[in-house]
Amino acid sequence: ITGAGTEEILAFFDFLGAAETARTISRIHPEDQVRLFSILTPADAADIIEEISDTQAADLIEDLPPEMAAAILEELDSDHVVDVLGEISDHRAEAILDEMDIEGAREARQFLEYPPDSAGGLMVSEFLAYPEGLRVSDILKDLQKNRETYTGYNVQYLYVTEKDNRLAGVLRMHDLLFPSKDAYLRDLMIKNPLKVSVDTPLEKLRHFFEEHRLFGVPVVDGDGRMQGVVLPEAVEEASRKRSVRQFLGFSGIVGGEEFRSMPLLVRSGRRLSWLSLNIVLNVIAASVIAMYQDTLSAAIALAVFLPMVSDMSGCSGNQAVAVSMRELSLGLIRPNELIRVLLKEAGLGLINGAALGLLLGILAFMWKGNFYLGLVVGSALAANTVVAVMLGGILPLLLKRMKMDPALVSSPLLTTVTDMCGFFFVLSFATAVMAKLSGV
Amino acid sequence: ITGAGTEEILAFFDFLGAAETARTISRIHPEDQVRLFSILTPADAADIIEEISDTQAADLIEDLPPEMAAAILEELDSDHVVDVLGEISDHRAEAILDEMDIEGAREARQFLEYPPDSAGGLMVSEFLAYPEGLRVSDILKDLQKNRETYTGYNVQYLYVTEKDNRLAGVLRMHDLLFPSKDAYLRDLMIKNPLKVSVDTPLEKLRHFFEEHRLFGVPVVDGDGRMQGVVLPEAVEEASRKRSVRQFLGFSGIVGGEEFRSMPLLVRSGRRLSWLSLNIVLNVIAASVIAMYQDTLSAAIALAVFLPMVSDMSGCSGNQAVAVSMRELSLGLIRPNELIRVLLKEAGLGLINGAALGLLLGILAFMWKGNFYLGLVVGSALAANTVVAVMLGGILPLLLKRMKMDPALVSSPLLTTVTDMCGFFFVLSFATAVMAKLSGV
Repeated sequence: ITGAGTEEILAFFDFLGAAETARTISRIHPEDQVRLFSILTPADAADIIEEISDTQAADLIEDLPPEMAAAILEELDSDHVVDVLGEISDHRAEAILDEMDIEGAREARQFLEYPPDSAGGLMVSEFLAYPEGLRVSDILKDLQKNRETYTGYNVQYLYVTEKDNRLAGVLRMHDLLFPSKDAYLRDLMIKNPLKVSVDTPLEKLRHFFEEHRLFGVPVVDGDGRMQGVVLPEAVEEASRKRSVRQFLGFSGIVGGEEFRSMPLLVRSGRRLSWLSLNIVLNVIAASVIAMYQDTLSAAIALAVFLPMVSDMSGCSGNQAVAVSMRELSLGLIRPNELIRVLLKEAGLGLINGAALGLLLGILAFMWKGNFYLGLVVGSALAANTVVAVMLGGILPLLLKRMKMDPALVSSPLLTTVTDMCGFFFVLSFATAVMAKLSGV
Repeated sequence: ITGAGTEEILAFFDFLGAAETARTISRIHPEDQVRLFSILTPADAADIIEEISDTQAADLIEDLPPEMAAAILEELDSDHVVDVLGEISDHRAEAILDEMDIEGAREARQFLEYPPDSAGGLMVSEFLAYPEGLRVSDILKDLQKNRETYTGYNVQYLYVTEKDNRLAGVLRMHDLLFPSKDAYLRDLMIKNPLKVSVDTPLEKLRHFFEEHRLFGVPVVDGDGRMQGVVLPEAVEEASRKRSVRQFLGFSGIVGGEEFRSMPLLVRSGRRLSWLSLNIVLNVIAASVIAMYQDTLSAAIALAVFLPMVSDMSGCSGNQAVAVSMRELSLGLIRPNELIRVLLKEAGLGLINGAALGLLLGILAFMWKGNFYLGLVVGSALAANTVVAVMLGGILPLLLKRMKMDPALVSSPLLTTVTDMCGFFFVLSFATAVMAKLSGV
């Protein structure tokens, strides 16, 4: 790196394409990253930043001196700036904002106030708005003059404002092609346009764009003043990121994304924090086995089935969790519809529990030739399947009502309860028919 | 429903909004759905179809008589038609296509040929393209005449074609505002525009829009002929759907999405198909315990730790799976970088294995006051954690190379191997120090 000139580096990254650039940057030592960015112009650095993921970009920006970081961020779109700053520690972000130009910093600070998954957090400030008193010819002049600046804007629509910057109407770009150049915007515009407020949540925005096939929606504050524009791709992108977070949380990756380019101790510590909680839950569940040691030593064959019953029920329960999380995110169930979910899952649990219990029961019977072993193991799995799917079905709803993240909490909680119940069913059923089981 | 008129129904759904409409439709009995749609005009029915998810829409369309389904589909955008038909059984889809108008059916058939996650499968056919020999005045006339039709189009860009419909250039809508009405398109257009080919995969498209902040990209076939336009929101939407599928697959929901409004036996059967495979894998893993029955009955306390070691290792391994799947989808690792992943995970496995092993070992020692019990359990968990994270890290890469779906296959395969290894480590270590363990 150190030997090459700026142009060669840019040409190299250009040659690599976005995916390879992201991969290459992630493999460079942090010190070399700083050196690399210090020889690029802010605009060139911003081009690279745009090609990599926000988490990666945030890591990189965080390592740069604040004034260099500020210069690069000034080259990015407003929504991108907020995405990157949102992933940086607060005091570091403040240091960078202090180095940015006043207008950009003010805007970024304002945008950072909005929750990231709301219209305020998703909107861009790059849009065209004109007072309603202007004529078509004024607009054409402005468009002509600022052609370069407007290239990156979504200029599908022009927004028309009345006094205090309040949104009054909207015009499509091609509405400007036909009328006389002397016509006033107020006479051409579509009045009372569709709009959303800054605090509209992501789900509502997705439904909005499903319902209205528009290429952007204006965002207004409480007083109806024009604040920005939300584009459909920003909404889709945020929804995609949310499902990625859901998937990662569900798999025990917490505290943000993990890349193998991060320091070993950071990765290890984050994974351990989740695992340590899990080991505690496991100890609680396993204590049920400890209580039934006598039963177990009298019929040691049961030990083979304990992990099977607990694992199978965990799987059944997780299926129900996934269906509930999906239905919640599509708005197909409301968090208070516990009874409906319990009934739907109970029916399914009975069928699947019977099928799986019969299968495992027959296997157990065939293995040891003891009918009661099959009966105990099979009925324990059947009963636990019913418990697991019913609990799995309602857990996400309950957690949502308690404002907790179903993706993070459902699975560990579910597994603990289904493990405990599974061990309890196997061992208590066995205790009840102990005389028939001795020695298996 | 039966009593109300069309207008009342539409007003009702309008009042409900998209989310509630989807929820309501999903709760209506299939027969009533057919009756509902038979009293709506195709255009009104299409409005409802647009508000609900593709899977839901496909279920609904499948239940309608083909001619009614065809009439509704004709009102939808081309990409939407393909999304819905793609989820319907082939011969049913054929029956509907046969009832559609010739042009629409031809186009839908052609679009269905492309893989859904390629530019061909994601593009829309609603775009504006004009021969390069036309003048600005011709375009204005066409735009004026077809205003209504073009409203739903993405008219940010106009595409300019040379002979054989080959893509020659692009114009932004506002480029038409300034030049003389007599100017030819070929003199105004940006030549050699950015474009993608019909077989460009989803990942490449995402990188394309990350690199170029455009509001659409033209899609050409092998001969450079203009086929359609891919919009950034379609790319984001497809990526989001892919992560949803990943999440569902990972949680054991296979064969498409599941909604609680589906028939009980369909839901039960699909979940069982995945669970039955899992029970077979569980039997294989548990057979390791069966082989060590003598060790286990001599030291029954071990039975308490078997499910713990297997569950904890499963969790550790799944974390590594999630990180690998994420890095794969971002292009941060290539499927052939096994050594890099193995080394990175081995380091982490040693640290986390040591920490978790120590914790569980101390707990086991404290419980029974037997040092060797702690040693056996702790070192088994430590060793198995290393195995689990290394295997979890490379499994998605291996499966990807074998063209299998990592989301579906990784977790069951991982759990089976880590269960077997976990049971083996605990019970073989215990056998080695049996004399010190007897009776715990």
